[in-house]
Amino acid sequence: MKTDQIDGMTRLFAIIGDPIFTVRSPAVFNALFARQSINAVLLPYHVAAPDLRTAWAGLKTIKNLDGVVATMPHKRAMCELVDELGDNGRVVGAINAVRRRADGRWEGDMFDGVGCVHGLKAQGHEVNGRSVFLLGVGGAGAAVATALAQAGVKRLVIADVDSERRNRVAERIRAAYPKTLIEVGSIEQGPFNMAINCTPLGMRAEDPLPFDPVLLPESTLIVDVITKPEMTPLLNLAKESGHATHSGKHMHHGQAIAVAAFFGFDLSD
Amino acid sequence: MKTDQIDGMTRLFAIIGDPIFTVRSPAVFNALFARQSINAVLLPYHVAAPDLRTAWAGLKTIKNLDGVVATMPHKRAMCELVDELGDNGRVVGAINAVRRRADGRWEGDMFDGVGCVHGLKAQGHEVNGRSVFLLGVGGAGAAVATALAQAGVKRLVIADVDSERRNRVAERIRAAYPKTLIEVGSIEQGPFNMAINCTPLGMRAEDPLPFDPVLLPESTLIVDVITKPEMTPLLNLAKESGHATHSGKHMHHGQAIAVAAFFGFDLSD
Repeated sequence: MKTDQIDGMTRLFAIIGDPIFTVRSPAVFNALFARQSINAVLLPYHVAAPDLRTAWAGLKTIKNLDGVVATMPHKRAMCELVDELGDNGRVVGAINAVRRRADGRWEGDMFDGVGCVHGLKAQGHEVNGRSVFLLGVGGAGAAVATALAQAGVKRLVIADVDSERRNRVAERIRAAYPKTLIEVGSIEQGPFNMAINCTPLGMRAEDPLPFDPVLLPESTLIVDVITKPEMTPLLNLAKESGHATHSGKHMHHGQAIAVAAFFGFDLSD
Repeated sequence: MKTDQIDGMTRLFAIIGDPIFTVRSPAVFNALFARQSINAVLLPYHVAAPDLRTAWAGLKTIKNLDGVVATMPHKRAMCELVDELGDNGRVVGAINAVRRRADGRWEGDMFDGVGCVHGLKAQGHEVNGRSVFLLGVGGAGAAVATALAQAGVKRLVIADVDSERRNRVAERIRAAYPKTLIEVGSIEQGPFNMAINCTPLGMRAEDPLPFDPVLLPESTLIVDVITKPEMTPLLNLAKESGHATHSGKHMHHGQAIAVAAFFGFDLSD
């Protein structure tokens, strides 16, 4: 679809964030809309954190706006602005997508972790019934941990440098998904089917390793949520030591599929 | 430009109105942006009159939104929401375009009448120093009358079924542009170089004529601001009786050029 085909019937979607310059959702979603001949477009909205409440009040009045993707720094604040909160959003305390329901109410949920589970399954890595180690429960990590419990992980060991945050996240997930055994601790509490890095360690070349994959048996899948670089030092070392690896690009693609489905579109083709 | 080329650097423009379904600004502006390789897009925002204040407060927070076109029913209400009001907007009491200035303040002005003057000049019809009859001073008519006075019309005779509105508009233009002789009255107060219909009469086939062109000498240019149909009964009858005619499409194109220039773009190529 060319931009000069945008007309008065075009439905709008947006991604709001600050900074906004590096967002990829417009390219992903607009390619989807074009491929499926949907008269819709997703735009980048550069909104600063102190302006979010005013921005959101205004955006809600735009009758042809059907959905919004929230990225940094708005994921937590958006929780308080929506009319309805999905299960994952409630447990994580943050959301990354909001849609207008048929009754006019705005419903938000968190798909960052769901995207990770989607990505793992798409690559043949089942999570249901498995034992998982997860390091780092900031925004992304809390979402991934929640989605893993929701997807039926049997045992989840959570680690974080901030033990208070670690305990809080563990408690919330435990309350929401009692079938999963949630522990706090370290990578030494194996065995694990997979070990996931949800810290930013590995984005910069000089970062220390988040954990040492060599300490884990070769059967443990080593997962990183970092997308740049695609192969982090953790993944490279894991590969060298004979582990299967799974990079952040799968989670990113899985997120887009999950958010598109939430908006009513099928991005999986 | 294809919609999947929209990215985090894309600048945004919008047209706000209710209804929004028939707007043509997205096609016109997006073709311009594509032709000139400008990473920008103009979107339709469907906003109802009672929501305008909230919508505008929100839109102002979007840092990559640079300009807004206002159409029905927002042209008058927008006057009170901008930080700075241009000359024509102040006289008319309505605006149809708002831009973000370098200092962050939002400045609005009215280009409906300016577009009409642009259109006349582009077709070789000078207005400076001429005598003009104008019927109908609702939103469009008041804007056209104001722009004609600003462009140096020597004598302007205004008529309207609502004599109070007619007198009010005449008084405001007289105060702003004292060099133009502004009279209220009828088509019998000629001679006129041009006679302009700014009423909606002629949009429907069963409408009566706004005025009878046969009463005017052949040298009087007959102008209609209606765009659908392009040739109104008034223009057809004028043509049959030997008058030169000028249709609403020229005003519409002139408006787009004027608003584009206000936003910093050259649409005249």
